[in-house]
Amino acid sequence: MKLSVKDMDISSGDALIGILNEKDAKLMDFHPGDRIKIVRGNRSETVMLNISVGKQSVPKGSIGLFEEVLSSLQLHHKDSVEILPVRKPFSLELIKKKLDRLPLACSEIRQIVSDIVHNRLSSIELTYFVAACYMNELSKKETLCLTREMAMHGDKLKLSAYPVMDKHCIGGVAGNRTTMIIVPILAAAGLTIPKTSSRSITSPAGTADTMEVLADVSLSLRQVKQVVEKTNGCIIWGGALRLAPADDKIIRVERPLSIDAESQLLASVIAKKASVGATHVLIDIPFGSGSKVLSRKKALHLKREFEDITGRLGIKTHVLLSDGSQPIGNGIGPALEARDVLWVLRNDARGPADLRKKSLAMAGMMLEIGGKAKRGLGLKLAEEIVNSGQAYRKFVDIIKAQGERVTKPEQIKPARYSLDIKSPRSGTITHIQNSSISKIARVAGAPADKAAGLFLYHHVGDRIQKGEPIFTVYSINKERLAFVKFAVRKLDGVVIK
Amino acid sequence: MKLSVKDMDISSGDALIGILNEKDAKLMDFHPGDRIKIVRGNRSETVMLNISVGKQSVPKGSIGLFEEVLSSLQLHHKDSVEILPVRKPFSLELIKKKLDRLPLACSEIRQIVSDIVHNRLSSIELTYFVAACYMNELSKKETLCLTREMAMHGDKLKLSAYPVMDKHCIGGVAGNRTTMIIVPILAAAGLTIPKTSSRSITSPAGTADTMEVLADVSLSLRQVKQVVEKTNGCIIWGGALRLAPADDKIIRVERPLSIDAESQLLASVIAKKASVGATHVLIDIPFGSGSKVLSRKKALHLKREFEDITGRLGIKTHVLLSDGSQPIGNGIGPALEARDVLWVLRNDARGPADLRKKSLAMAGMMLEIGGKAKRGLGLKLAEEIVNSGQAYRKFVDIIKAQGERVTKPEQIKPARYSLDIKSPRSGTITHIQNSSISKIARVAGAPADKAAGLFLYHHVGDRIQKGEPIFTVYSINKERLAFVKFAVRKLDGVVIK
Repeated sequence: MKLSVKDMDISSGDALIGILNEKDAKLMDFHPGDRIKIVRGNRSETVMLNISVGKQSVPKGSIGLFEEVLSSLQLHHKDSVEILPVRKPFSLELIKKKLDRLPLACSEIRQIVSDIVHNRLSSIELTYFVAACYMNELSKKETLCLTREMAMHGDKLKLSAYPVMDKHCIGGVAGNRTTMIIVPILAAAGLTIPKTSSRSITSPAGTADTMEVLADVSLSLRQVKQVVEKTNGCIIWGGALRLAPADDKIIRVERPLSIDAESQLLASVIAKKASVGATHVLIDIPFGSGSKVLSRKKALHLKREFEDITGRLGIKTHVLLSDGSQPIGNGIGPALEARDVLWVLRNDARGPADLRKKSLAMAGMMLEIGGKAKRGLGLKLAEEIVNSGQAYRKFVDIIKAQGERVTKPEQIKPARYSLDIKSPRSGTITHIQNSSISKIARVAGAPADKAAGLFLYHHVGDRIQKGEPIFTVYSINKERLAFVKFAVRKLDGVVIK
Repeated sequence: MKLSVKDMDISSGDALIGILNEKDAKLMDFHPGDRIKIVRGNRSETVMLNISVGKQSVPKGSIGLFEEVLSSLQLHHKDSVEILPVRKPFSLELIKKKLDRLPLACSEIRQIVSDIVHNRLSSIELTYFVAACYMNELSKKETLCLTREMAMHGDKLKLSAYPVMDKHCIGGVAGNRTTMIIVPILAAAGLTIPKTSSRSITSPAGTADTMEVLADVSLSLRQVKQVVEKTNGCIIWGGALRLAPADDKIIRVERPLSIDAESQLLASVIAKKASVGATHVLIDIPFGSGSKVLSRKKALHLKREFEDITGRLGIKTHVLLSDGSQPIGNGIGPALEARDVLWVLRNDARGPADLRKKSLAMAGMMLEIGGKAKRGLGLKLAEEIVNSGQAYRKFVDIIKAQGERVTKPEQIKPARYSLDIKSPRSGTITHIQNSSISKIARVAGAPADKAAGLFLYHHVGDRIQKGEPIFTVYSINKERLAFVKFAVRKLDGVVIK
C-alpha cells in the first residue's frame, strides 16, 4: 500500500513511530503496537504502529512519521512510501530459549543480532534478551559469537596505519579522564589512535561528554578518518557512528536498571575495538570498594576474559588492574573534568597529580606496546612529550581538526551557583565513595548541564580540619542545589576518621 | 507548570504518551522518554514524554495527549492540566534485586505492584521484573504476597450471595469452551457465578472472544453486579474491569514472548478470583502432550500450589486434572466455538460429545461443591438441567442481560472462504496437536476475525479414509488461506497411523 508521508513534527527520543489512520489500519488488519515496514526506494525501516482515531491528525492515505523515522529514511513531508506487514521475528523463539537457560548456537546469535540491528525487536523483546543474558551469563563461545556479530553488523573504520592503538576503561571511577591525556601523547609520538568514547550512562560525565566541552564529538566515519589521518588521533563519540549498532540498542535498554551483564560488557567493548580496526589495546579495570568491580578476584577474572576473547579475534591486549577506590582528578562533571585535563597537558600546577600520574603511566605502557619506547622507558617518553608541551600542542591540533570550541582552561567556568560541603570534624579522609560523588554531581545537573558538577579539594589520606570545605558543588539551578544538600545528608560518601 | 491540553487524536494502543513543545521541555529540563506526571484535579497519571520539534504539532504552553491519557484522566481538548517531574520509582532497585536472585519482602512486592498499577514503570522496567520472576521463580511466600497485592490494588465485585462460585482453566487446549456451558447450568441451579474471562493471547479464541459473538462482554462493575443479581451468572471480559490492573499490565509484557512464569500464573488467576469475591473455585488443569502442562507430575505440582495459596486466602478450591492431549469440541475460533456451545445447550445432535461430557462433569462437581447436589449426584443434576432446556433458557437470559447479539446457532455462519484439509492416507488418528490446530486457526484470522477458524470432523481414535477431510479452515481473506496451505504443510499436527 502506497501512502503519503506526514511529518508529525514529534520526536520520541528513541522509538521509531509511525501513525496510520484507523480506516487504513482496519483495511490492512493492523493494530496499535504492530510492527510495520516502511519502504522508500532501497531503504526500509521497521516502525511501531500507532493509530489515529479521527481524521484530523493523520488522514486516510497518509502515514504520520516521527522525527526518528524521517531522519533514518531521509524522508520529507508528502514523500510517497510503501508499507508492508512484518512477520514476528524468528529471534523471539531464540530469546525464549535463552530465558529457558538453553545455550545458543552462533547462527542463532547472528539471527538475534541481525534482528536487533534491523529494528525488528521491540524494546520489550530486546529487554528479555538482555535480562536472559544477565541472569544466565553467556558462555565464552556465545560471548565470542556475540562480539563477532556485533562488530560485523556495523560500519568499519579502515585505516592503512599499523599498529592501530586503542584503550578502554570499564568505568565506575568518578573523574578518571585519562583518555584525553593519553590520546595526544600517543598521537604526538606518531602512533595512530582513533579513540571512540561513550557518553555518560549513569555517571556524571563520559569521555564524549567531556571532550564535547572542547570540540565537536559527533563526527561521521569519513570525518573521523580525515581527523586521524591528519593528527594521528581523535576523541569522538562512538554513538554518532554505526560501529556496533546492536550494542547501542542493547545499552539503551540496559540503562533504566543499570544492568551490566559481563558477557555483554565484553562483547560491547571488544566489538567496538574491532570495528575501528584496533590491533593493540590497553584495557583499564579499576577495582576496589566503591567502584564497579569490587574485588581483585573479579578484576582478574575479567582480565582473563578480555585477554581470551580479544586473543581469539587477533587483537593484542594488555589489561591493567588499577586502584578504583576513589575519584581520580579534582573536577567531576564535563566542564570541570575538561579543565583538569587541560591543566595537566599544559603542565599547570593546578593539574591533579593523581590524574597526571595514572595517565602518563598508561600512556607509557602503550608507547611500549606500540613499539615507540623500549621496555621500561615508556613512562619517561610520555613525561617528555607532556613536559615539552608536545602533548598539549597535539591536543589542540585534534580539537581544531574535530571542530574547536575551547582550548584553554581559563575559558572554562563552573556553573553559576555553588555550595561548599564542609568537613563535620577534623581528621584524616579514609574513603571517598565514587558512587556518592557521582550521584551528587548528577543531582547538580551533570552531564546534561556541562558546567555542573563538583570540585574535590582532597583525596584519601589527606588531613582535614573541621569546617574546611571537602568539595564545592556547582549548578545552574538553585533548586538543584537544595536537592544536593538533601542528597549529601543522606549519602555520606566521605569518611573522615 | 500549567498547560493547555491538545487532543492529538492518536492511540498508541497501550502506552500513555504526552508531547511537550521543545521550548517548554527545555525550560523544565525534560527529555524525550522522561516520565512526567499530569495532574487534573484529584486525578493524575504518569506518562512517557515525547517532544515536538517545531511549533506546529504541539505549540508552547500546550501538552499533546494520546487517546489513552485523555480517556484515563477524562480530559478534553483545551482543558488545563498541571505537569510535574517524576522521580525514578523506588521499585527499580527492587527489580534489580530480583534480577540478582535475592528474595523480596512483602513490603517490597507491595511497592512494585503499586508502581506497576500507578504506571510508574516503563515497559522495559516491567519486562525486567517479569523476566526476573520467570528465570528465578518466586517463592511460595513471595507468590502469596504478589497475589494479595494484585487483588488489593484493584476494584472489587461485592455480592451478598454465598457461596460465590468460580472456575478457571489454565488453557492450552484448542476449543474447550466449557465455561459457557457450566455458567448457565450453575446459574439455573441457583448458584451465583460471576465469571470473568480473558481474551485470547496466543490461542485462536478466549472465552471472552467467544462470548462476544453472542453478547457484549465489556461491562462496567456496576453492570456486572446487575447482571449477576438478575440471572445469577455472567460471562464477561475481565480486562474491561480493573480487578487486578497490575496483572493486566504484566500480561501485556508477557505476550510478545508468550512468557508464563508459574508464580505469575498463580498470582494472576487467584488474584482475579479474590477480586470477584469467589468463595468456592474449580480449577481445570489440562495436561498431556501438546498442551500447556506436559506431564502429570507438573500438573500435580501446580494443583498443590493452587490449593496451598488459595487455602491461605480462605478460598475453597478443587483442582481437576483433565486430558489436554487434543482439542475439545469441533469448532475452533470464536464464532465456531460459540456455535458448538449453543448446540450443546440446545441438545442438538451436532453438539460435540466431548465438550458436553467434560462440561457436564465439571458442572456436576461444582453443583456438589456449591451444595446443590449430594456427593455423587452432581452430574445427574447437571444433565437434567441441560436436557430439560433450563440451561439454554438461563443462557439466553444471561445473553440478554449482558446485551444480546445472537442466541441461536443457525445465526452463526463461518467465514466465507474455506479450505478442506484431507487425510493423506487411510488409518486411525493417533494425535491431534493443540498448538498446531491453534496456529492454523490463527493464521486463518482468529480471533481478530470472529468467523475465522476451523472445524474438526474427527478426534483421536477415529478411523479415516484417504482423501476424507480431517478439518475445514474458514477465512474472510483468500490470501490467508494461501498461508494456511503453507502452514499445514509445515505443521503436521495430525498423526494418522
